[in-house]
Amino acid sequence: MTQAGKLDKVLTELDQGLDEALDRLIGFLRIPSISTDPAHKADVRAGAEWLCNELQTLGFTADIRDTTGHPMVVASSQPGEGRSLLFYGHYDVQPVDPLDLWDRPPFEPELQDTPDGKVIRARGASDDKGQLMTFVEACRAWKAVHGALPAGLTLLFEGEEESGSPSLLPFLEANAQELSASLALICDTGLYADGRPAITTQLRGLVGEEVVIRAADRDLHSGHFGGLAANPIMVLAQGLAALKDDQGRVTLPGFYDGVEELSDELRSDWDALGFDAEDFLSSVGLKHPIGEKGRTPLDMQWNQPTAEINGIAGGYAGDGFKTVLPAEARAKVSFRLTGTQDPARVRAAFREHMRGVLPADCEIEFHEHGGSPASVMDITDPAFAAAKQALTEEWGREAAFIGAGGSIPIAGDFKRMLGMDSMLIGFGREDDRIHSPNEKYDVESFAKGARSWARILATLR
Amino acid sequence: MTQAGKLDKVLTELDQGLDEALDRLIGFLRIPSISTDPAHKADVRAGAEWLCNELQTLGFTADIRDTTGHPMVVASSQPGEGRSLLFYGHYDVQPVDPLDLWDRPPFEPELQDTPDGKVIRARGASDDKGQLMTFVEACRAWKAVHGALPAGLTLLFEGEEESGSPSLLPFLEANAQELSASLALICDTGLYADGRPAITTQLRGLVGEEVVIRAADRDLHSGHFGGLAANPIMVLAQGLAALKDDQGRVTLPGFYDGVEELSDELRSDWDALGFDAEDFLSSVGLKHPIGEKGRTPLDMQWNQPTAEINGIAGGYAGDGFKTVLPAEARAKVSFRLTGTQDPARVRAAFREHMRGVLPADCEIEFHEHGGSPASVMDITDPAFAAAKQALTEEWGREAAFIGAGGSIPIAGDFKRMLGMDSMLIGFGREDDRIHSPNEKYDVESFAKGARSWARILATLR
Repeated sequence: MTQAGKLDKVLTELDQGLDEALDRLIGFLRIPSISTDPAHKADVRAGAEWLCNELQTLGFTADIRDTTGHPMVVASSQPGEGRSLLFYGHYDVQPVDPLDLWDRPPFEPELQDTPDGKVIRARGASDDKGQLMTFVEACRAWKAVHGALPAGLTLLFEGEEESGSPSLLPFLEANAQELSASLALICDTGLYADGRPAITTQLRGLVGEEVVIRAADRDLHSGHFGGLAANPIMVLAQGLAALKDDQGRVTLPGFYDGVEELSDELRSDWDALGFDAEDFLSSVGLKHPIGEKGRTPLDMQWNQPTAEINGIAGGYAGDGFKTVLPAEARAKVSFRLTGTQDPARVRAAFREHMRGVLPADCEIEFHEHGGSPASVMDITDPAFAAAKQALTEEWGREAAFIGAGGSIPIAGDFKRMLGMDSMLIGFGREDDRIHSPNEKYDVESFAKGARSWARILATLR
Repeated sequence: MTQAGKLDKVLTELDQGLDEALDRLIGFLRIPSISTDPAHKADVRAGAEWLCNELQTLGFTADIRDTTGHPMVVASSQPGEGRSLLFYGHYDVQPVDPLDLWDRPPFEPELQDTPDGKVIRARGASDDKGQLMTFVEACRAWKAVHGALPAGLTLLFEGEEESGSPSLLPFLEANAQELSASLALICDTGLYADGRPAITTQLRGLVGEEVVIRAADRDLHSGHFGGLAANPIMVLAQGLAALKDDQGRVTLPGFYDGVEELSDELRSDWDALGFDAEDFLSSVGLKHPIGEKGRTPLDMQWNQPTAEINGIAGGYAGDGFKTVLPAEARAKVSFRLTGTQDPARVRAAFREHMRGVLPADCEIEFHEHGGSPASVMDITDPAFAAAKQALTEEWGREAAFIGAGGSIPIAGDFKRMLGMDSMLIGFGREDDRIHSPNEKYDVESFAKGARSWARILATLR
C-alpha cells in the first residue's frame, strides 16, 4: 500500500471514531488534575494513571515515573522505520477560581453547540488535555489500521506544567538518553489568530533583572536634603530612560549582537499573515505600534529584541503626598532576546550601563530573575516543510511558519538538555479562555488536530 | 528710665522668676492637647483655656475663638508706643505613639539633668508649648516690671498646627483686620545646628504634582506586546530623567525665572556658619553633596530650587518577577522654590514638559498637591538687624540670618493673607526629638529664649 493510501485509511478511522475519541477526552477531563493545589495531589496522579492506561491500551510501553513532585508519564513504541521523535504534552490543568464565573462545573465536561460551532467545555479542554489527545488519537488510529506507528516515538507527559515544572529539568537530565530524539513535537500552542494552521519556529528568549539603587540610610525630608542628597528614583529613571534612544533602539553596547534579519522565507510567510497591528492593539485599548522605526509590527513582535520595564517602586506613591527623598528605588527590567543573543552578555551590559549612571554615594544591587536564549528552530530540516505541507492539506489553507514574542520554556529546555529542536504545533484558538473560567476547545480543533498529526506522522517517518 | 535700664529690670525679673515660669510650663505640658486625635478634643480645648487664662492674668484681653475644628486663642495688649506686632504659636501637640519608646509618661513633665544640661521632658516641651511660653514669659516680665509692653501686640495661638491647620486660612481671612500688623513673630524654629542664635529669613516654597501615565486598558504580557505597545513606566522614566541636565540644573523652560543670587550680606552670614555638607550628609549615611556644580551646599539647600521625585510606582515590583507590560505608571514630583518663582508657572512648565514626551496611545493625568511660593523676608526692615543684635547680645555669639530648605506654611499664609513678613526665631535644638518619643526642651533654651524675646521687644518698640 502506498503511504498515501495508508494515510487515507488512518484519516477515515479518525473520522469514524470521533465520537468515541470525544468520550475518551471527556473521561480525561473529568479528572481535576490541578497541579498547583496540594488538595488535588491524588487527582493529578489519577490523571497520570488514566493517561498511562490509555497508552498501554494502544500498545505503547508506558509507565508512571515518580518525581519529588507530580509524576511523569513516559511511553514508547517499538522503533519504527522512520526518524525518532519525542512528543510532549502536559496532563495537569490550571486552578478553576473564580468558580462562580463558570457556567457549569469545570470538571463536568459538556459538548455544546455555539454560533461558532461545536465545542467541548471544561477546565483543560484546550490546555492541554484536548491538545495532547489529538496526538494520542492520531497514534491510536495508526495503530488500529496498520498495527504500528510510522515513526519511532517516545511520549513524555508532564504533570507540573501549570505549577512551574520544578521536576522537569532534573527528569530530562536523568533520562536524557531515553528522551533524546531527532525532533520534539509539542502540542501546546494555537492556530494563528485567523484560524490558519501554523508551526511556531522561533520564540524569544528572556533576561530578567531587578535593580535596586540606594542612597541615604533612611528616607529624608526633601526640604532639608533636597539639592544636596542623591535621589535614587532620579538615578534609576535616568538609567532606565537611557536604555532606549529616540528611534526606539536599545542602547546597550553589543545588545544587537546575534540578532538576525528575517530570512526571505519567513518574511514572506509573516507578510502573508496580514497581521494588523492596529487591530491587535485595539483589543487592549491601544492603536499605534511603537518600536524601532522602519520595521514591520511582526518583525518587532517576534524577531526583534526588547527592553521593557516591568515594575518600578520607590518613595511614597500612595494617596496624598509625602515630601520624602527616598532611601531607595527599584525596578524590574526584562529583555526579550532573538537570534543568538547571549543572555549573560545582555545581563552584563545592562549592569554595566546602570553602574555607569551611578553618582557618588549611591549603591546598586542586582538580582537575577532568569535568563534563556531565544529558541530558533532549524527550518531547513525537511520535517518542517513536510509538516507545513501536511497542515496545509488538512486545513485547506496555506500553513505558516510563525514566531512568538514570548517564551515557551520547554522548547529551550529540549534544545539545551537534549540537543533537539522542537516543532510547536497546536490547534488552540484565541477564544479558548485557557486559564480562565469556561475554557473550551473546538471540536473542529480536536478532530482536525488529530487528522493533522496523523498526516504529520506519515511525513516524518 | 532709659530703654536699656528698663530692659535690665525685665531680664532680672525673668531670671528670678525662672522656677515659677518652669512650673507654669509644666502645668501647660500636663494637658494632652493632641489635635489629630478626636479622643483628645476636650484636652485641646483645655489647652486653649489654660493659655487664655494665663494671658488674661497677664493683663491681655484674651478669648477663645471657636472654629469648625479646634479653637484659636487671641489676645491683645493696649496699643503701645511702638509698632504693631503679631505673635504666633501653637498649643496643640503631636501624638505620642509609640508609647513604649518613652522613658516616662509623655504628659507627666519632668526636669532632668543630662550631660548636656538641664532639660524639661514631655510631649510638646519644645514643639511648641515650651517655645511659645518663652514669648509669654517675656511679656509677663515686661508687664510685671513696667506695667506695659513696649509694643502693640496681638497674640494668635492655634490648636491645629499638628493636624494640617484646616481652620487657619478661614480664620485669618475672617479676622484679617484684627490680626494684621507690621510684622509677625513666630517661635516654632530652632537655633542653628551649632547652637548659634538665628533668624530664619527665607523659606523655600513648594509645588507638589502627581503624574499618571496610562497606555493599554489592562496590564499586558510583555512577550506578546513588548515591542509594539507603549510602556508607561518607560515614558515616565524618560520624562522624569529629562527634568535635570548633566550639571544638575532643572531643564524646564523658565524654571529659574525669579531665582535670585544671594546678597553679599546673606552670603557672608551663611559662610560664617561653617556648614560642613559632608558632616551633615554623614548623619544619614551619605558623603557627597550633589547638585548644581559651582554652588555652595547652603546655597543649594536654602537658595536654589529643586526638582525631586518623591515617589514612583508602576507594574509589578513585589517579590519575584512578572513579565507584565503595565497599563499605567505614576510618580509624585515636587519642586522647592526660591526667590519669586511662580508656583503656577512651574507647575505649568512641568506639565508641558511631561506632555511633550508622551507618545501616541498614552494618556497623561496630573493631580495638584499644593503650591506655595518661597517666603523671602525683607531684611532691610530695621527690625531684622535689631533682633539680630539682640540675639547676639543675649547668647554671646554672633546671631545669623539663615534660610530653610523646607516650607513653614504659616509664614507664607501671613504674607499672602495679611501682607506682612514674619520673623522666625526659635530656640529648639536638633536633638529635641520633636514628633518623636522623649521630646525635650533645654532649660537654657527656655530661659535664654524668654530673655531673647524680652530684648527683641525692647528693640521693636
